[in-house]
Amino acid sequence: MTANEIPDYIEGYGRVIPYANKLREIKVKEDKKEKIYFAGKAECKLVKDIKDVLEKCKIKDGMTISFHHHLRDGDYIINMVMKEIAQMGIKNLTIMPSSLQKIHEPLIDYIKMGVISKIYTSGMRGQLAKEISYNNILKNPVVFQTHGGRARAIENGEVKIDIAFIGAPACDIMGNLNGRTGKSAFGSIGYAIVDAENADKVVAITDNLVEYPLCMPSIHQTKIDYVVVVDEIGDVSKIATGATRITQSQTELLIAKYAAEVLKETGYIKENFSFQAGSGGASLAVIKFLKEYMKEKGIRGRFISGGITSVLVDLLEENYFKALLDAQTFDAKAADSFNRNKNHIEMSASMYANPYNKGSVVNMLDIVVLSATEVDINYNVNVLTGSDGVIMGAQGGHPDTADGAKLRVITTPLVRKNIPIIRKKVTTIVTPGNNIDIVVTDKGIAINPLRKDLIEKLKYSKLPIKTIEELQCEAQSIVGEYVLPEFGSEIVGIVEARDGSVIDIIKKLKKQAN
Amino acid sequence: MTANEIPDYIEGYGRVIPYANKLREIKVKEDKKEKIYFAGKAECKLVKDIKDVLEKCKIKDGMTISFHHHLRDGDYIINMVMKEIAQMGIKNLTIMPSSLQKIHEPLIDYIKMGVISKIYTSGMRGQLAKEISYNNILKNPVVFQTHGGRARAIENGEVKIDIAFIGAPACDIMGNLNGRTGKSAFGSIGYAIVDAENADKVVAITDNLVEYPLCMPSIHQTKIDYVVVVDEIGDVSKIATGATRITQSQTELLIAKYAAEVLKETGYIKENFSFQAGSGGASLAVIKFLKEYMKEKGIRGRFISGGITSVLVDLLEENYFKALLDAQTFDAKAADSFNRNKNHIEMSASMYANPYNKGSVVNMLDIVVLSATEVDINYNVNVLTGSDGVIMGAQGGHPDTADGAKLRVITTPLVRKNIPIIRKKVTTIVTPGNNIDIVVTDKGIAINPLRKDLIEKLKYSKLPIKTIEELQCEAQSIVGEYVLPEFGSEIVGIVEARDGSVIDIIKKLKKQAN
Repeated sequence: MTANEIPDYIEGYGRVIPYANKLREIKVKEDKKEKIYFAGKAECKLVKDIKDVLEKCKIKDGMTISFHHHLRDGDYIINMVMKEIAQMGIKNLTIMPSSLQKIHEPLIDYIKMGVISKIYTSGMRGQLAKEISYNNILKNPVVFQTHGGRARAIENGEVKIDIAFIGAPACDIMGNLNGRTGKSAFGSIGYAIVDAENADKVVAITDNLVEYPLCMPSIHQTKIDYVVVVDEIGDVSKIATGATRITQSQTELLIAKYAAEVLKETGYIKENFSFQAGSGGASLAVIKFLKEYMKEKGIRGRFISGGITSVLVDLLEENYFKALLDAQTFDAKAADSFNRNKNHIEMSASMYANPYNKGSVVNMLDIVVLSATEVDINYNVNVLTGSDGVIMGAQGGHPDTADGAKLRVITTPLVRKNIPIIRKKVTTIVTPGNNIDIVVTDKGIAINPLRKDLIEKLKYSKLPIKTIEELQCEAQSIVGEYVLPEFGSEIVGIVEARDGSVIDIIKKLKKQAN
Repeated sequence: MTANEIPDYIEGYGRVIPYANKLREIKVKEDKKEKIYFAGKAECKLVKDIKDVLEKCKIKDGMTISFHHHLRDGDYIINMVMKEIAQMGIKNLTIMPSSLQKIHEPLIDYIKMGVISKIYTSGMRGQLAKEISYNNILKNPVVFQTHGGRARAIENGEVKIDIAFIGAPACDIMGNLNGRTGKSAFGSIGYAIVDAENADKVVAITDNLVEYPLCMPSIHQTKIDYVVVVDEIGDVSKIATGATRITQSQTELLIAKYAAEVLKETGYIKENFSFQAGSGGASLAVIKFLKEYMKEKGIRGRFISGGITSVLVDLLEENYFKALLDAQTFDAKAADSFNRNKNHIEMSASMYANPYNKGSVVNMLDIVVLSATEVDINYNVNVLTGSDGVIMGAQGGHPDTADGAKLRVITTPLVRKNIPIIRKKVTTIVTPGNNIDIVVTDKGIAINPLRKDLIEKLKYSKLPIKTIEELQCEAQSIVGEYVLPEFGSEIVGIVEARDGSVIDIIKKLKKQAN
């Protein structure tokens, strides 16, 4: 074949692999395992159904499979895929959804059948969470990861995903895909980007096969093995958390007013500041007050990050902020903005919050306003379990933003349904107290003693500033005696910090689920 | 810190790393070397100048550094970086530009000084190429890679880049960057995407620092270590090859006419076909005839891929094709289209042509029309050396598209400047003959005997179809005797096929450069 005679070894080049008239198989030693690269010529990756794709991916017992939660409570993908897997008789899988919702209740059966034996997730809700908390139905403890921690574990190879399933609102035959258009358009597909880049096999499941090539792909064909077309990947009307109206609760309005006032007095609201807040009704109220202040002072912020709602889209469109950095889009109006406005920018879970890449967005945040199910006198925050000990929430980006941002504010009522939220000890530590600066409640505001600068700045404030111990006593005195959950010895959940170390564990409850 | 006492080991989870109040260092064993991940908090990656960034990257003797060639003959980056490196006294570097142009002549001195001792590139031109060909000034043979082969070598770890330098027409302080806007906007930054994703350290060099966050980033902040601002990264007026006018040469027009006619008769020009062609004057003429045919028959193509010129932009805008897939943008009008038209889509070198990812664009091509400096009677093609044996071109995507496309057509004059182009033996094999289907010359058309289907289809064609041997004899008879270059024994260049095997070698010329 060659024009010249080629030696076996060339000085300055090394051993010569002669060209063999077709592309060779390439073997690379990776951590003692050999990885083999084949020169494929797949012209169309379409596979007829989920069962077929599972067979093509050579699914087998013990594998790790991943999902993403952009469709939230409207997600059909997890149940659809797990049903087929269960019917194939596969056992002992590790599943790694970026989060789990109420709609994923059917997983209970697959756990009981032994199809699923390990779960990595950001959070868990509803009946599935109760079955874990009360009955420890899973063989192994659920590993709760932060959004950044999940990206870290995948990117540095701590967790190896065998097959990633990606729900794609728009996808072409080669697997170029995004969440921009189609009946199931949900906006940013940020969490799935990490899965696609690192999983062994990647399957796109779409209900909107578009002409090749898809424009503005979020995930490229170079990462997708197969494409499956189904009728519906989900119900986008169930993505919205319903939290796009400002709270009517006088308590929440008061908390929001205090929070906004604190933010002003800290001096962090200034030209080009960056901001993130939860999507709850109280956060929305904070944003309303914030907006009034920014208008009054002529301040324009740089970016808002995290999960993006229509309220945040308004801030962009009304020119209060220059950009939105979006890992997950929370409603239809925001999804439309994502598709239309180039300053509404998609970010992967890694870009959002992995502390071990070359720069995550949370590390650039000035202000984050976060919620809590409990806060203790060391400022530790729980967002994962209720005070009854039952798993009912998600780590999400809470510990990531609290670790990254310059000012970390918690808003919470002092007491909720006769349960003290500020307490001596939280049921579960999710975000460590040294990453929380200020706790704002309806009965007063506490500043973490670690933040001497903030205490100094707010020295002459007219806000009801108290110590966290005072708030705890006040909560205690309002509630009086309250019942602590009784835990057994079995560990049902492990709370990983964003660096993968263990910050807490969750134990099985003694009482039976009702 | 934890709310619960945490055991050292948890069944179903494994060894527990307790949370330590700050993010841990993570060590991962990778191919026997430990890779350490630090939890960084870089808020601004700005470094004052090239020298400073080289020190921050801990540049040292023997490292491999990479560059990309989107600025072509207007590139200032390579010379700028190499000058600083030479001044620091660094020796024995491997450089891996995606291609080298005439402007890179200063590398001759750095090679002679021992700063550079190895080169991976797609091609080489001008005085530098002559110094390699005649004087073997480099210690080691230049490794010539295809665009897809380069992506493969980087992505599967065959070549490890220590520091990648990326010329960024628009970049923010965190390193989100693209080629869309700014005085040096060149369009697609496709080749550099692979470098950014795989190099140990990645440096963005920009002459247009934009406000954070840059919208529509092509490379994200998660991949960039440092950002350096300089006055000018290049001269975009020198990107254009000047080849955007249709040839006036009667010979080339005839070749183009034959080529267009052959394309029609093969039946490959049909609804939704995909197409790639070189940027030379003859290619443009082919496109003109193609367009007329498509208009007449009402055919609309799917995509055009490769390097994108304004002529191809016209085809998109006039609705002859649905999309452009762009790895490298060749002129200002095309760069403007890239920034404006969402059907003008960026693709990485990997997506373009790496045969070992999950699907490259070249593998989806129907038709590719390519040029040649020589073609032999086995249909092997040379595009790297002249018939005088001097290195003067580039592999580029030639062997990639020829391997991937369904119909591979070479257009070339039979004789060029009294040199036979169709000959018994090419000086250097770049693209193997089994990947070439048809050779179109001004004196006749040859169809590779391997393509019995095409021979059958064109059986009754009125085109001057001949055997390749007939063409070779005709060329010989026109030229008469011609002088073959005399080579010594030293190997100055290695021609890697797209799979990294060696398809040919280039030897030092006996005569001295003049």
